Amino acid sequence: METIKIGVVGLGTVGTGVVKMLQAHQEKISEITGRKLELACVVVHNLKKHEQVDLGDVQMTDQIATLLDDPSIQIMVEVMGSIHPAKEYITQALKAGKHVVTANKDLIAQYGRELVQIARENHRDLFYEASVAGGIPILRTIDNSFAADRIQRVMGIVNGTTNYIMTQMLTKHWSYDQALSSAQDLGFAESDPTNDVEGLDAAFKMIILTQFAFGMSLSLDHVQVQGITKISPEDIAEAHQLGYTIKLLGIAEEIDDRIAVSVGPVLVSDQHPLATVQNENNAVMVTGTAVGNTMFYGPGAGELPTANSVLSDITTVAKNIALNTTGNTFNSYRQETVLATPEDVVYPHFIALRMRDVPGMMMKLTAIMTRAEVSFSRIIQNQLGDGNARVVIITHAMNDQQLADITREIGEQENMQLLASYKVLKNA
Amino acid sequence: METIKIGVVGLGTVGTGVVKMLQAHQEKISEITGRKLELACVVVHNLKKHEQVDLGDVQMTDQIATLLDDPSIQIMVEVMGSIHPAKEYITQALKAGKHVVTANKDLIAQYGRELVQIARENHRDLFYEASVAGGIPILRTIDNSFAADRIQRVMGIVNGTTNYIMTQMLTKHWSYDQALSSAQDLGFAESDPTNDVEGLDAAFKMIILTQFAFGMSLSLDHVQVQGITKISPEDIAEAHQLGYTIKLLGIAEEIDDRIAVSVGPVLVSDQHPLATVQNENNAVMVTGTAVGNTMFYGPGAGELPTANSVLSDITTVAKNIALNTTGNTFNSYRQETVLATPEDVVYPHFIALRMRDVPGMMMKLTAIMTRAEVSFSRIIQNQLGDGNARVVIITHAMNDQQLADITREIGEQENMQLLASYKVLKNA
Repeated sequence: METIKIGVVGLGTVGTGVVKMLQAHQEKISEITGRKLELACVVVHNLKKHEQVDLGDVQMTDQIATLLDDPSIQIMVEVMGSIHPAKEYITQALKAGKHVVTANKDLIAQYGRELVQIARENHRDLFYEASVAGGIPILRTIDNSFAADRIQRVMGIVNGTTNYIMTQMLTKHWSYDQALSSAQDLGFAESDPTNDVEGLDAAFKMIILTQFAFGMSLSLDHVQVQGITKISPEDIAEAHQLGYTIKLLGIAEEIDDRIAVSVGPVLVSDQHPLATVQNENNAVMVTGTAVGNTMFYGPGAGELPTANSVLSDITTVAKNIALNTTGNTFNSYRQETVLATPEDVVYPHFIALRMRDVPGMMMKLTAIMTRAEVSFSRIIQNQLGDGNARVVIITHAMNDQQLADITREIGEQENMQLLASYKVLKNA
Repeated sequence: METIKIGVVGLGTVGTGVVKMLQAHQEKISEITGRKLELACVVVHNLKKHEQVDLGDVQMTDQIATLLDDPSIQIMVEVMGSIHPAKEYITQALKAGKHVVTANKDLIAQYGRELVQIARENHRDLFYEASVAGGIPILRTIDNSFAADRIQRVMGIVNGTTNYIMTQMLTKHWSYDQALSSAQDLGFAESDPTNDVEGLDAAFKMIILTQFAFGMSLSLDHVQVQGITKISPEDIAEAHQLGYTIKLLGIAEEIDDRIAVSVGPVLVSDQHPLATVQNENNAVMVTGTAVGNTMFYGPGAGELPTANSVLSDITTVAKNIALNTTGNTFNSYRQETVLATPEDVVYPHFIALRMRDVPGMMMKLTAIMTRAEVSFSRIIQNQLGDGNARVVIITHAMNDQQLADITREIGEQENMQLLASYKVLKNA
C-alpha cells in the first residue's frame, strides 16, 4: 500500500487531537482510502513548551522549512491559528506542491478567496471543514447534498463559548459576568474572550457558510454583528416567560437574490430545534427550496471533535490522491455578491426599554412606534422601584430600517432608554 | 458543455419531484458539475394514469427497453419502489453500462450487497442516499465525515409516519387508531400502514445505516423489531409525567465489536435532542469515539425533500463522470458481522403492568424482579377502578436477557399482565 506523508503545524488543542486520531484510526483510514497515512513531522513555535510530548518516531521541529522543503510530505495540516504566519505557510506549502488542510476560520474568512486561487493555480487541494462548527461536517454537507437545491437560509449557533454562557445564564440565573467567569474556569472561554463574546468568531464562520450556501464572498463589514455582553438576566427571564430562549445566532439569508448576514442575540421559540441546543454544542439549520428545514447538530469545539473534521479533510485528500482527482475547489459555487438593504430584512423584534414611570410616557412610545409603522403583538411593563418602569415589547414583523428609525427616535427622548433589541424567530 | 442524459423509472411522489427539480435547478447543477443534465425519458407502468402529465419534450413510455437499450442514457433513476421488477431493472441497467440512483430502501436493505457487487463488476456508480431519512443526507455524511472516527452508535427517528402518529397521540391525546386515521387522511400513512407502524420500514433503514456506520451486513431477522400499534395513551401520558417522550427509535450500536440493532418504542428524555423531533420529521444521531454526539435533522419524506437526496446522488454521479472516477462503491467500509448477545444490550426500561388490586401482588412482582436482579428507580401505581391496578416501573439498567426472564415470569403469573416494556434513553 502506498504511503502518504503528513506534516502538522501547531500542537495546541486541535493539533494534539489530530496527532492522536492519525495514530488511533490508521487501520480504518487505510481501508477506506487505500493509502497508509504517516505522520512525518510536527512543527511547533516553541520546542521547549512541548518537550514532554512523546511523538514516538515522529520528528518535532521549530523549523517550518523541515516540512516545506521535504518533497515526500504531500499534506500539510495547519492548526496553529491566527493570520500570520499561517497565511504565508499555507501559501508556500501550496506553491511547493503540497495539499493543505486547515482549521483556521479567521484566515479562511478573510483570505480564503486568495488562498483558494493559489490552490487552484497549483492544482492542489485546500480543505477547511474544521473552520466552521467544530465537529459538525457542515461545509462538505452543503457542498455535496444541497448542490441541486436552492438554499434560502443558513442559520445557527456557531460559537460554543457564547452558547455555553447563555445556557448557564438561563439555567442558573447567572449574570453575564458570572457565566463568563465560569466558562473561563472550565476552559470554554479564553482569558480575552472578545472575539467570541462580541460575535466576531461567529461572523467569520457565517462568512464561510455564506460562500458555501450562496456562492457569495463577503468581508466582515458586510456582516451586522452584535455580541452577548449586554444581555441582561431580565432579558433572558422575560424571553423565557414568553416562550423563547435567547441564542447568539448567525443568520445568512437570500432575499430576492440579495444577501443579508447577521450575528446577534435572537429570541428562538422554545419549540424550535435550535432552542434545545445546550452548552458548548453548535447547530446549523439549512433551509432549501426543495428540502425544507434541515439541521446539523454536534460539538462546536474541543480537541477530538475538531480533529475529526480535520481528519475527514485529510481522508478526502487521500482519496483524491488515490483517484488522481486533486486540485478541485472545495466549493465551486459562485454568484455575484449583492447585499440586501435594511428594508429587506424583516423579523418581529423583542425590544426592552427603561422609562420614567410618569403619565404620558407610554403614549410617547406608542407615537414613536406608530410613526415607524411598527405594531405590537405583546407588551409587558414592570415597575423597577426607582421611579422607572421596564417595558418589553414583542413587535409584529418589521424591517431593519424601521428598527433604525425607532432606535434613533427613542434615543432623542428624555426619560426613555433603549436597553435591548433582538430579532425573534418563530417555529421552524 | 457535455450533456448527460438521464432516464427516470417511476412517476409517483418522488419521481415527480425528481423531474421538477431536474428542470428547475438545471443552471446551478451545471455550474457545479460542469455537465448539462438532460431528462431523456420517463418510464411508467401505466401510461393512461399519467396522460395528464405534461413533460414537454421528454418521452414518456411504458417500455423499460426504451431506457435500457438507449446507449446515450448514462444514468437510470429508479423511483418505482418494491423489490420486483426494480431489482431486475437495476441489474440490467448496470450491466448495460448505466449508473444507477435509487430511493428504494426495501431493495437496498435486502439485496444491496448483490447490487453493489454488480455495480462494482461493471465499474458503474450505484447511489441510494434517498433510501434513508428522505431529505437528510445521512449516508454520504457518514461516509465522508466519519471515515476517520470510530462510530459507537447510530440511532434515530427514521420513519416519518410513525413519528407523525406519535406526535399527535402526545399533543392531542388521541388514541393510536385516531392518530392513524388522521395520518391516513393527510397522506402521511398509507391505507395499509403495516410496514410503517410495525417498524419494518425503520428496520430496513437501520440495516442500511448499519452497513455505512459499522461496515456490517445484516438481514431483517437480525433486527429486533417492535411496532407502535400497542402503545396506549396511558403509556404516553405516564412517560410525559416522568419527563420522557415516547419515540419509535432505531438503534444500532457496537458493543465490544458486536452489533445490536433494534427498532421499537423508546422513552426519550425531554431534554434529549431527539425528543423535539415533531410530526413527519426524521433525525439521526451519530455518536463517534472522537466527535461525540452529532445529530442530523430534516424532513423524512415528501416529494421534494426525497427528490433532493436523489438529485444529490445524480450530481455526484455527474461529477464522477466529469472527473472520470465512476465505479467506486458508495460505502467501502467492511467488517465481519458479529451479532451481540441479549446480555450485551443494556438499558433502563419502562415496564407497564396490569395486576389484580389484592394484597401480596406487589410482593410477587418485586420477587420476580429480584430473581432477575432488576432494581427500580421509579414506580407509579394507579387504580383502574375495575379491581385492577396499573403499575408502571422505570428500572435501572438491565439487559435483554433479564427482560426476557421477567417477561416470561410475569406471563406465568395469574392476575398479572405485562402491558408494555420499552427502553429508556437518558440525556444525550
